[in-house]
Amino acid sequence: MTLETVSEVKSHGGVQGVYRHASAATGTEMTFSVFVPPQPEKGEALPVLWYLSGLTCSHANVTEKGEYRAACAEHGIIFVAPDTSPRGEGVPDDSKGAWDFGLGAGFYVDATTTPWSANYRMWSYVAQELPALVADHFPIDAARQGITGHSMGGHGALTVALRHPGRFRSVSAFAPIVAPSQVPWGDKALSNYLGLDRSKWRPHDAVALIEDGARLPDLLVDVGEADPFLERELKPELLERACADAGIALTLRRQPGYDHSYYFISTFMNDHIRWHSERLAA
Amino acid sequence: MTLETVSEVKSHGGVQGVYRHASAATGTEMTFSVFVPPQPEKGEALPVLWYLSGLTCSHANVTEKGEYRAACAEHGIIFVAPDTSPRGEGVPDDSKGAWDFGLGAGFYVDATTTPWSANYRMWSYVAQELPALVADHFPIDAARQGITGHSMGGHGALTVALRHPGRFRSVSAFAPIVAPSQVPWGDKALSNYLGLDRSKWRPHDAVALIEDGARLPDLLVDVGEADPFLERELKPELLERACADAGIALTLRRQPGYDHSYYFISTFMNDHIRWHSERLAA
Repeated sequence: MTLETVSEVKSHGGVQGVYRHASAATGTEMTFSVFVPPQPEKGEALPVLWYLSGLTCSHANVTEKGEYRAACAEHGIIFVAPDTSPRGEGVPDDSKGAWDFGLGAGFYVDATTTPWSANYRMWSYVAQELPALVADHFPIDAARQGITGHSMGGHGALTVALRHPGRFRSVSAFAPIVAPSQVPWGDKALSNYLGLDRSKWRPHDAVALIEDGARLPDLLVDVGEADPFLERELKPELLERACADAGIALTLRRQPGYDHSYYFISTFMNDHIRWHSERLAA
Repeated sequence: MTLETVSEVKSHGGVQGVYRHASAATGTEMTFSVFVPPQPEKGEALPVLWYLSGLTCSHANVTEKGEYRAACAEHGIIFVAPDTSPRGEGVPDDSKGAWDFGLGAGFYVDATTTPWSANYRMWSYVAQELPALVADHFPIDAARQGITGHSMGGHGALTVALRHPGRFRSVSAFAPIVAPSQVPWGDKALSNYLGLDRSKWRPHDAVALIEDGARLPDLLVDVGEADPFLERELKPELLERACADAGIALTLRRQPGYDHSYYFISTFMNDHIRWHSERLAA
């Protein structure tokens, strides 16, 4: 698989790159960013942290505003940020141009309905195609992977981790959608991408997956108490209950005064990278 | 003077705000950002660090990409980022829409030529009007001020500091334009804003000011060796020579591999804030 370098810039001692490739999963070009920290030794394989972004975002939001490079440089972690949907000519979008469905809102599922099923295959993209591509082109140690994400990307991180037991040594999320089947954003996305049979939604609902027996070693989640989506879309109490019932060691931190933005994410990014680093250490 | 709050968001324990006001200096509305770190004691006055931005930027670039909040929170420093030019209906711009003159490129001078003199009064704005406004609305200790900036904003920081001896306890710059009279960006801006009499340019040229007797206590400057503007526009060797001749303690660091972008700035922001903090300590 070939990779086109869009840009590579030195930052925090490492290299912040943006790359583009033709995706078999989505049938489109896809763009993603990778930060490779300074490497102490030539040929050393480094742990990797996957970051899945939220509604409306591309790779660029976290790359510019996420404030992850200093900590990734310190701990020697590669940071990968995919896009949130297919894009480009011919890719269908929400008919009313809504920001919570269609472009920028792939919800990390493989759509099964028309017209979405042709391109909206973000599950295959982030869980299979991109990991193989990244492993081919970057010095990652596949035995040391962590995953995190924000909002819709927190949903993506949790569901990908729950359905790939053993792949990720560390999992965390910022303000994740934990039970899309039970909230408006998820209901809109899953019904349109997957159809109305709700049994098909459960593999894309973190709380349902845990109820159905999926497990994680432990989990760090931050939410802002001033997040306008907290009560209606995020509902961290559903994750709290599911983890308690399942015996998953959830560290859920409700951060007073914080909202849903990258001002919130960047504040706690350092903590999350430290959490992952402790679990990804050789 | 009244201030309109555009937004206030909690970040890194403090508040990142964006504010708007009617400027007497520019005759326009002006927008700027202020980060107020967590305050240990009510009523305590905090040191302030001014950050002047470069060509094409507004307050937003450093606010989103500057990675200054963690260090400002740690050291208890207020961070203020003004815009780089007047904006709005009726404000003239470069006739060809060039990015190095006009909107986003006020060069921190009070223009004396037509049509620029009506609005392009960024010297008065950043040196007088905005400091008075900020002192009115935020808990700053005016005896503990530092100033820094990037590129055109490095030029602004150096010239404002050199012409206000005693106002700033600490001065630094990222990839500054140090001798605008001797480089294309400066020649274009100063000839258009100030006219062709080059004696009028000297008060807006850091190297010329130092040659003419202006002094700073000491100075930290970072430049990237892969900065595409280094040789043609920045010419740090001119500052090096002027400081050596004048006995100014310049710490000039040539950073291998770094460019002119916020990926460079954010890498060394922490060092700069520590430099200022050491000099702004009570």
